Amino acid sequence: MHDKMLRTLAADVRTLTSIARNPRFATVQSSDIRVFESICGQNYVKIAEIDNYATDWTKAFKGNPACVLLPSTTDEVSAILAHCAQRNIAVVPQAGNTGLVGGAVPVYDEVVVSMKRINKHIEFDEKTGTLICDAGFILEELDNHLAPHGYMMPYSLGAKGSCMIGGNVATNAGGIQLLRYGSLHAHLLGLTVVLPTDDGKVMELGSTLRKDNTSLHVPHLFLGSEGQIGLITRVVMNTVPKPSSVLSAMIGVDKFESCCCILRIARRHLSEILSSFEFLDREAMVLLEETLNLKQVLHSNPRFTILVETSGSNKEHDADKMERFLDECFNSGLTVDGVQAQSVAESSAMWRLRESAPLAVAAGGFFYKYDVSLPLNHFYELTEVIRVRCLKHTKHIVTYGHLGDGNSHLNVIAKEYTQDLHDTLHPFLYEWVAAHGGSISAEHGIGQLKLPYSTFGKSPAERDLVRRIKTVFDPKGILNPYKTF
Amino acid sequence: MHDKMLRTLAADVRTLTSIARNPRFATVQSSDIRVFESICGQNYVKIAEIDNYATDWTKAFKGNPACVLLPSTTDEVSAILAHCAQRNIAVVPQAGNTGLVGGAVPVYDEVVVSMKRINKHIEFDEKTGTLICDAGFILEELDNHLAPHGYMMPYSLGAKGSCMIGGNVATNAGGIQLLRYGSLHAHLLGLTVVLPTDDGKVMELGSTLRKDNTSLHVPHLFLGSEGQIGLITRVVMNTVPKPSSVLSAMIGVDKFESCCCILRIARRHLSEILSSFEFLDREAMVLLEETLNLKQVLHSNPRFTILVETSGSNKEHDADKMERFLDECFNSGLTVDGVQAQSVAESSAMWRLRESAPLAVAAGGFFYKYDVSLPLNHFYELTEVIRVRCLKHTKHIVTYGHLGDGNSHLNVIAKEYTQDLHDTLHPFLYEWVAAHGGSISAEHGIGQLKLPYSTFGKSPAERDLVRRIKTVFDPKGILNPYKTF
Repeated sequence: MHDKMLRTLAADVRTLTSIARNPRFATVQSSDIRVFESICGQNYVKIAEIDNYATDWTKAFKGNPACVLLPSTTDEVSAILAHCAQRNIAVVPQAGNTGLVGGAVPVYDEVVVSMKRINKHIEFDEKTGTLICDAGFILEELDNHLAPHGYMMPYSLGAKGSCMIGGNVATNAGGIQLLRYGSLHAHLLGLTVVLPTDDGKVMELGSTLRKDNTSLHVPHLFLGSEGQIGLITRVVMNTVPKPSSVLSAMIGVDKFESCCCILRIARRHLSEILSSFEFLDREAMVLLEETLNLKQVLHSNPRFTILVETSGSNKEHDADKMERFLDECFNSGLTVDGVQAQSVAESSAMWRLRESAPLAVAAGGFFYKYDVSLPLNHFYELTEVIRVRCLKHTKHIVTYGHLGDGNSHLNVIAKEYTQDLHDTLHPFLYEWVAAHGGSISAEHGIGQLKLPYSTFGKSPAERDLVRRIKTVFDPKGILNPYKTF
Repeated sequence: MHDKMLRTLAADVRTLTSIARNPRFATVQSSDIRVFESICGQNYVKIAEIDNYATDWTKAFKGNPACVLLPSTTDEVSAILAHCAQRNIAVVPQAGNTGLVGGAVPVYDEVVVSMKRINKHIEFDEKTGTLICDAGFILEELDNHLAPHGYMMPYSLGAKGSCMIGGNVATNAGGIQLLRYGSLHAHLLGLTVVLPTDDGKVMELGSTLRKDNTSLHVPHLFLGSEGQIGLITRVVMNTVPKPSSVLSAMIGVDKFESCCCILRIARRHLSEILSSFEFLDREAMVLLEETLNLKQVLHSNPRFTILVETSGSNKEHDADKMERFLDECFNSGLTVDGVQAQSVAESSAMWRLRESAPLAVAAGGFFYKYDVSLPLNHFYELTEVIRVRCLKHTKHIVTYGHLGDGNSHLNVIAKEYTQDLHDTLHPFLYEWVAAHGGSISAEHGIGQLKLPYSTFGKSPAERDLVRRIKTVFDPKGILNPYKTF
């Protein structure tokens, strides 16, 4: 998908939301730049060569920021936000800029405050597994820091080499091990945040303790807040012991209902060690071979492929559980094909298929990516409904995702952007998801991409409440404007 | 501890907070009673025989409610709160009334709204393990409902026979299996709540999905909110597969540092199946024998006793893990004594000691119960400091608790209430906890008991923020007054 197509798409989305630059926000002046320079130092106020900060990872969204600020401490962030609040300058917080919905880039000339230099302080308590670290640490750096202690971060993402922990909190990152370790709500203990108030209020919220019932648990409000209520500069989080045994298996299934039955069998036999239950349909496998020349692991070309992973503390026990699981899959007749990885290389080959699926989609043509949650009985029905509806317009309709969490990544791929396809898909698809008890954003967030549809499944009362909560944190509404849920 | 003593204590606490009845709140008139009767039905508006609703479980706190309302639906709760908001009548929400800090009973004449009749609707999805139920269901009823499906609630408390899920959410209940399943933040998905606004706004917050990043995660603000921001009438929660294998062991240790080393060994060997790591000191064991005639399981009369429990899906694997764990405990010389339960009866005998400890304290004399979180290196230091400080005044100083979560239940027991002992303990103990990085309330909450100390460890900025958040939900401040964090 080349840039021009993406721009067209972004423009199209923007038209839907009818956003105009809000004249309430001040335009950054050279006097503001001098203030920012006095706070961050001259080298860390950028007004040129800032395309990387202005452009979303998908390249679909591009703003025109007045400047990019690179503070290195919480106090610098505080001074920046105090000045911006006093002057009514709009601000977009940005961590690793690996989001997929245009949430971390400006819409117009908002100032980008990058967290990437806030990455000095890190403390780890081996007794409790508690990590305290600056928000700009990259997820993989944190895993590397924890590994010698026998611990790891309680989540993992494709973007782990560039996404930052502050952004992970702000987007409530999900990922491929949620089945085993739960969402970030299970692990977040405390945050240092800066509010966009006239005094750039710095707040240490929560604590470093696993149990602390002395106030409202405000840190949890920041999970998935998408930069709407404050800038996160430090995170306190539980980590988890690194599993000493990780096993993978791939299973071929010919009916979607059988996939759901196998999930139940996995929950029973693999129980406490089940860490991933990933899903790819045949169309995804065909596209992986066509675009990336990646061969299937299963030779029977099954209708659906399940990738199961376990993470445990005892290899022998885990292997025994996996064997019982696979035995029941085969004996019950639910599985048409299956193989357990016997080596790291074999396991990598399985994961390469799953992890390359987004790249295969990107190489397949002009695409719409979706990230929806659905009750399991509707999980694949959505794909089938869209396939019938968009037959004429599309090259490929491909679904993969985190079946164990009910999280479908459906992708619709066409030769090029057409208004006709766009209108066939939208708002139909989001309406269908909401009508079937699903969520229009499982893990990617709302950002700019889904803003036109953010009413779906949320009541006006809840949206009003959320806006009033935002006002408590951001009284002037300068934080990440044009994207409020 | 007889009632008079408790009243003295409660009065003492109240003096500290200098609370007077707020004249802003209307006094309930007979016309209000008629309105309530028209909403709930005559039988469900009680003005006599309401001592059980007016008095805290500990009997230390007793209010004088104008009436007790027993609505049976969310709509009835909505009508009640609308009337109370319009009339400025103060309201105290009450679930199972098993709290230990006076949070669910009135201070003066506030109207009690009991949730106990809101217990009709229950749905369970076996595919996903998601439970949707009314807030008035008792925790044990829910476990009984889930058992035939092979599932259980992801937390367990001593009060499970009478506490209700709505109250568990409002107090962010912890309990004895937090190590294995995490806090309620790991499991809460959605809530139906009623706000105390002029229209008694009903809100369905969150969803029934494991992943839903479409708005601020407002349900998490209700965890530990102690009835300050809304009445919970329905809960959506993850449940967990019921373990098919549960093993217990008791270990004697002669140094506190060794307890912490054993926790690390447990995390390594028991890892994904470690569900409890409970602690009792010798003083607790002595008191159990003295007051309840309960004999120790370990014959060596060790300085400290650890109770370890595992919850897993494969008995053979779990037994093997437990054996490796116990082997290392003994081989390392950290353990002076230890035994693994060989039967349910043996396991019950171990748990009886731990679960009876609060009863032994209550039978021991006039007592102060504490519920604090501490970093592990200060966990038992607090007990030692208090022992030296209160030597003259006390009969027993006894500590038990959830060592695996850093949650100490220290108890100071005297012959009777004396101002001298009270002043020796307070505010010293809470100051010490806050100064050593702890929390003055790990799992019981603030309520009335800890209100005088609720500033400890929380910044004025955070408290101000929390009060402004409360105002968004409860604009007239009628909900659970005199107890705002």
